[in-house]
Parts: sequence; structure tokens; C-alpha cells
Amino acid sequence: MVQKLQLLHEGKAKKVYSTNNPHELLLEFKDDATAFDGQKKGRIREKGALNLAISVLLFEYLEKENIPTHFIKKISTTEMLVKAVKIIPVEFVVRNWTAGSLAKRMGIEEGIKLKKPILELYYKNDELRDPMINEYHIEAFELAERQHIEKAKEYSFAVNDALIRLFESVGIILADFKLEFGIDSKDEVVLADEISPDSCRLWDAKTMEKLDKDRFRRDLGRIEEAYREVLKRLETRR
Amino acid sequence: MVQKLQLLHEGKAKKVYSTNNPHELLLEFKDDATAFDGQKKGRIREKGALNLAISVLLFEYLEKENIPTHFIKKISTTEMLVKAVKIIPVEFVVRNWTAGSLAKRMGIEEGIKLKKPILELYYKNDELRDPMINEYHIEAFELAERQHIEKAKEYSFAVNDALIRLFESVGIILADFKLEFGIDSKDEVVLADEISPDSCRLWDAKTMEKLDKDRFRRDLGRIEEAYREVLKRLETRR
Repeated sequence: MVQKLQLLHEGKAKKVYSTNNPHELLLEFKDDATAFDGQKKGRIREKGALNLAISVLLFEYLEKENIPTHFIKKISTTEMLVKAVKIIPVEFVVRNWTAGSLAKRMGIEEGIKLKKPILELYYKNDELRDPMINEYHIEAFELAERQHIEKAKEYSFAVNDALIRLFESVGIILADFKLEFGIDSKDEVVLADEISPDSCRLWDAKTMEKLDKDRFRRDLGRIEEAYREVLKRLETRR
Repeated sequence: MVQKLQLLHEGKAKKVYSTNNPHELLLEFKDDATAFDGQKKGRIREKGALNLAISVLLFEYLEKENIPTHFIKKISTTEMLVKAVKIIPVEFVVRNWTAGSLAKRMGIEEGIKLKKPILELYYKNDELRDPMINEYHIEAFELAERQHIEKAKEYSFAVNDALIRLFESVGIILADFKLEFGIDSKDEVVLADEISPDSCRLWDAKTMEKLDKDRFRRDLGRIEEAYREVLKRLETRR
């Protein structure tokens, strides 16, 4: 029986608790939503449960695709048990279509398919607003070890290939997404955090309707319905 | 005899002219100075002549260090003849010490020596204010060919090693600098643009006094004197 002990950390969308097993943590998914580095705040009804259900489904799928994840098991509708890992303070953003900050930075309209996927690295640091970095910054500032970053980059592209296929099969375009990785007790890199409409841009392949957090960022309405639609489509595929 | 023909392009610090030889261009160095993406404008007396003299000296030094450059010969105090190359639209910034945008972006004070040099790539685009990019952006948007970028990266670190040594021998710290590269008619990557106190951060090794364009950016005064001091020290070493 898992015991939920001390609150170790409260993030923007999740709480992290210690458990009676030092190698395992409990993640509680919240309904809170933030955007633009926390400048916009709100709540999306049922988001915690929907993101947890989607993440569980995607982590289980990726494990079958030989990508190790921190996921152990679902505890409740908003709680999952995960491996206690040391999070690499780097966000791995994979992009297949122009959108968001990429479109803005490069002066290109949204919704153009890229000739090749783009991987971007960002230093996970709220105060600095997650600045873009590269491998040289990581080495000079000793943010992570080179072999861990290489592995995480390799997994990022493998996750991209696997998720493109999965979402395509349910009529959804995976425009871009953000991953986080951790190092487990055996010094192995594993996929961590969550994979959900909070961390992915998902577009209906027919209508190009947004089925992700951009509905919240851009006040498009029907946010909960969009998240629910993603879960429903993924569930019918199982 | 070189004939200065048509003005092909006027940049912030240089004018580019065609010549009677289609494989050669004439660069005229201006006294105009700009900073902060052109928001700050001014003139530095004799800057054109000083930057030209410093660039000539550094290009000749780097050629001896087996780094190919576009430099052919000096024409006058403010004009040099260069190979006509296709400029790669990427700025290669090499950093040995924290300063400028790196210090700001990473929330670190200036003047800290990095454990390893950092190479940053920026998309040369005034309108977009030269956004930071990486190799994946270059491939996805076809900004340059992979082998050209690899070569330019290799040369960037070789230039860094060579210039650190040279400046060290005249009591100057090479904190960071920006390079541009071009592709010549034989499809070879060559160092282009200029190397001067406009494109390098140079600090007196004893006093840490700034001997570069930061004197203009930050209104520190004695700008021309600083540029002249850099040239004087480099000349005594020949």
C-alpha cells in the first residue's frame, strides 16, 4: 500500500509527494493552468484527471516502444506513482510544425510542416523564463552530463516518431511537444514529467482545430472538451 | 588596378562594392556605430580605419594558422579587397567569459571565466533581431548546408584558440566574439566579415578595462582610444 507522505514540491500543474518507498514518488495532477511563464493563470475543470489519464496511456505506449519512463502505476484519478529520479534541468522541445515561439522567433506563420523535426533545448528556470540553450551551455555551466543529454536527445526523437504514429492513427497532428527527463538510481535516463495537452500541441488532422493548451492560452473556449476529446480518441484505439 | 564599381550593399559598419573582377569585392569600413539591433546610433572617429587595420592584421595571422579567410589585400586605410563569397546567414558567437546577452540570459554576473568555451548560433536577420538557433533550425529552414556549418563550427573553435593566444601575448583577454563565414567559388568555407573591437569583447588583462564596442554601448567614453590601444598592442607584436 502506497503512503502519501510529505509534499516535496508544488509545481504549476502538479504536486510531488514522498512515499513510504524512498525510490518512489507520488505525483498529483492539478486542475490549475498557467501560461506565458505564469503570467496567465486559471483552472481547467477535470484537467488533472484528464492529463493523468492521457499521460498514463502515453507512458504505457512508450514503454512498449522501448522508451523507459518514470511511470510505475496509477493510484487514483489524479495520482500516479513514479520512480524517484533526478530531473535534468533542461526542457527538450520537439517540433514538427511551426507554432508558438518558433513561429514568432523565425517570423513565420503557424501551421507549416517542417522539412525535418527541430529539437530545441531550454534551461528549466522559471526566474530566467526558461532561456534557450545548447549543448555548450550545458557543459560550461555543468547543467547535466554529456552522455545523459545525448541519450535524452535520442529518446526525444524516438518519442516523436512513436507519438506521431499514435496520434496520426486517431486523426491528430502532433505539432510539437515538450519533454523532461530524469536520471534514475541506476544512472539511466528515463522520460519523466507528463505528456498531455498541457505539454503537446495537438491539432485535429481534418479541421486543424486545436486540442491542447493553446485553447487556454488564446481564450478559445471549450478547453475541457478538447482535452476530453484527445483522451477519448486515444482510448478507442486501445 | 582594382576598380571600385557599384555599391552592392550598405551594412551598419561597412559598404560592399563590386569590382572589375567578379570574384572579388571591395569592403569599405565606416565610422558609423550601432548597438542594440540598431536602436543606438553614433559615430566613432577613425573607427573604420582602426577596424580595418585590426582586421587585416588578424586575418593575416589566422591565414598563417591555417584558417582560410576572405581577405585578399588592403587597398587604402578604410578599404580592403576580399573574395566574393556567399555569406552563410548564421552568426557564430564564441564565448570564453560571461558577458553581454549570455550573462543576462543565464542570470549570471559578467566577467566569470567559463569552464569550456560556448558556441552560440544566431540567425542573421535584422528584422527578427538575430534570434538564437541551433543546427536543427538550420536544416529545417535550409539556411545552410550541414557540412558547411560543421566546418564553420570547427573553424570557430580554431579561431578562438589562435586569437586567445595572440591577445594573451599582448595582455588582452578575449572574452567573446562573433564570426561570419562565407562559401567561396570552390564551395569552401572561409572566414568573412571583420574581426575587430566591434565584433569582439576585449578586456585589459590587468585592469579588466573594456577595449571594445561595449565602451560605445554603455557610454564609457574614450572609445577611439580603446580601439587604437588594441591596434597598437597588436602592431608591436608583429
